[in-house]
Amino acid sequence: MNSTAKDLTEQTVTAAVVESFTHAPDPRLRELLQKLVPHLHAFVCETRLTLLEWETAIEFLTAVGQKCDDTRQEFILLSDVLGISMLTETINGARQGTESTVLGPFHLTESPKRANGDCIDLLGGKVPCVVTGRVLDADGTPLPGASVDVWQCTEDGFYDVQQPDLQPAGNGRGLFTTDGDGAFHFRTVVPSHYPIPTDGPVGELLAATHRHPYRPAHIHFIAEASGHTSLTTHIFVANGPYLDSDAVFAVKQSLIADFSEVSDPALAEKFGVAVPFRIAEIDLVLEAT
Amino acid sequence: MNSTAKDLTEQTVTAAVVESFTHAPDPRLRELLQKLVPHLHAFVCETRLTLLEWETAIEFLTAVGQKCDDTRQEFILLSDVLGISMLTETINGARQGTESTVLGPFHLTESPKRANGDCIDLLGGKVPCVVTGRVLDADGTPLPGASVDVWQCTEDGFYDVQQPDLQPAGNGRGLFTTDGDGAFHFRTVVPSHYPIPTDGPVGELLAATHRHPYRPAHIHFIAEASGHTSLTTHIFVANGPYLDSDAVFAVKQSLIADFSEVSDPALAEKFGVAVPFRIAEIDLVLEAT
Repeated sequence: MNSTAKDLTEQTVTAAVVESFTHAPDPRLRELLQKLVPHLHAFVCETRLTLLEWETAIEFLTAVGQKCDDTRQEFILLSDVLGISMLTETINGARQGTESTVLGPFHLTESPKRANGDCIDLLGGKVPCVVTGRVLDADGTPLPGASVDVWQCTEDGFYDVQQPDLQPAGNGRGLFTTDGDGAFHFRTVVPSHYPIPTDGPVGELLAATHRHPYRPAHIHFIAEASGHTSLTTHIFVANGPYLDSDAVFAVKQSLIADFSEVSDPALAEKFGVAVPFRIAEIDLVLEAT
Repeated sequence: MNSTAKDLTEQTVTAAVVESFTHAPDPRLRELLQKLVPHLHAFVCETRLTLLEWETAIEFLTAVGQKCDDTRQEFILLSDVLGISMLTETINGARQGTESTVLGPFHLTESPKRANGDCIDLLGGKVPCVVTGRVLDADGTPLPGASVDVWQCTEDGFYDVQQPDLQPAGNGRGLFTTDGDGAFHFRTVVPSHYPIPTDGPVGELLAATHRHPYRPAHIHFIAEASGHTSLTTHIFVANGPYLDSDAVFAVKQSLIADFSEVSDPALAEKFGVAVPFRIAEIDLVLEAT
């Protein structure tokens, strides 16, 4: 900064702040800050933000940070409801393969390692469900030894970290490894649609703007295989509510999967479940790096 | 939201998020959010923000929120070093009268009520200082009964809330009322230039970008009188370091005051201080509402 930093006006302060980052040694950090500042300043100027509104924004952001703990990430939630998570995921998504979608705020604990066929529903839900899939290269080659990290909510719409007194840690979570055919499968229950947590500042924002907090039912996946770009995505349960109005803007048509009802006893025996059960079949296609 | 909320792309997600706020009942909240979202999205797109950078930003903002407590406001500090506080103060400043500047992060406690002539330096600093001033209407009429809230750091550059073990609460603070002539005066010490707190995420940001954290020496004021716009400002100590490179972009030439040395025993006796002492004389001119 130099003497232009004195007597700054609405017209000159933005350039002075941009200039203040000139000596940042990391060129990317410099670029990010020098592009962020003009947008934030333009927002203040265009809206003629009042001091009371500025104070309210400070208090809101402080409350968002203070709501975060080991099992709650309110800033991800804020990013999600403003579409920033989905936009960032979209511009970084692979050009080939399965579409990506948001990470969401519930990937907070390490998923327990499980073997193919294991059940991630530790509560004994009402309707058993089998998810089978493969991890594939973009040309269709199966990828053995790929990791498939899975997390989902219960039939009642809660993740384990939201109900530490009601759910064992790791309920609805599993870290699987694909077999020699690139395949994985696990038992679970069909997840419910659910509201994102509304007992914090992001919930207040949604309420104040008359936006509903619901997400359509889905199962989260992160698939990773050496030599390939990591894929963060969901499968959405077909025909459920909120597929057209996801509170976090994350639905892709290509990620909606049928969770068909099966009553074939032979198939039930194969997967170790009772009839009737539901089955979802998905391929996770990764782009080579 | 409607069915356009499915399969959103880089090109369509911004409009979908803006649309999601259409039913916000408060038109101003709706306007603020509908103008904020395009700026944040444009920043993500222009910089091709990576997922790792997004994650770093989430962690940074979370840390900023978690650093806040009763005596620390790290989000104001962040707003300050990005020039947002000064810009907001500038666009809301009065068109007439004394120029305003930032509130800063240290107006956290209520200033103790003090009588004119009281000393706000409770530690017995090395060089006594007298500040005398008047609160005036823009046409020069004195404003009796106006409140003048004052806060400043010590000769060592720390506010009371930063050193709860070394300074009594209320050190460097006072809430004065102007007398029948619109005048106020108090005894203190000349404040030092100081670094904004660097032991948090904002300090890390400044260090990572090779920006210094210093503010030039100043005393904060909020002057209020009925029928007039409240004035938040500083007086800066002339000839000190960092007047040209304030870390929070808040220096106005018109707010720089001489803190002249006085050796006149009669004047010293009038104010109840020993010679030599320093004196600063200021008028705080308020705009009528």
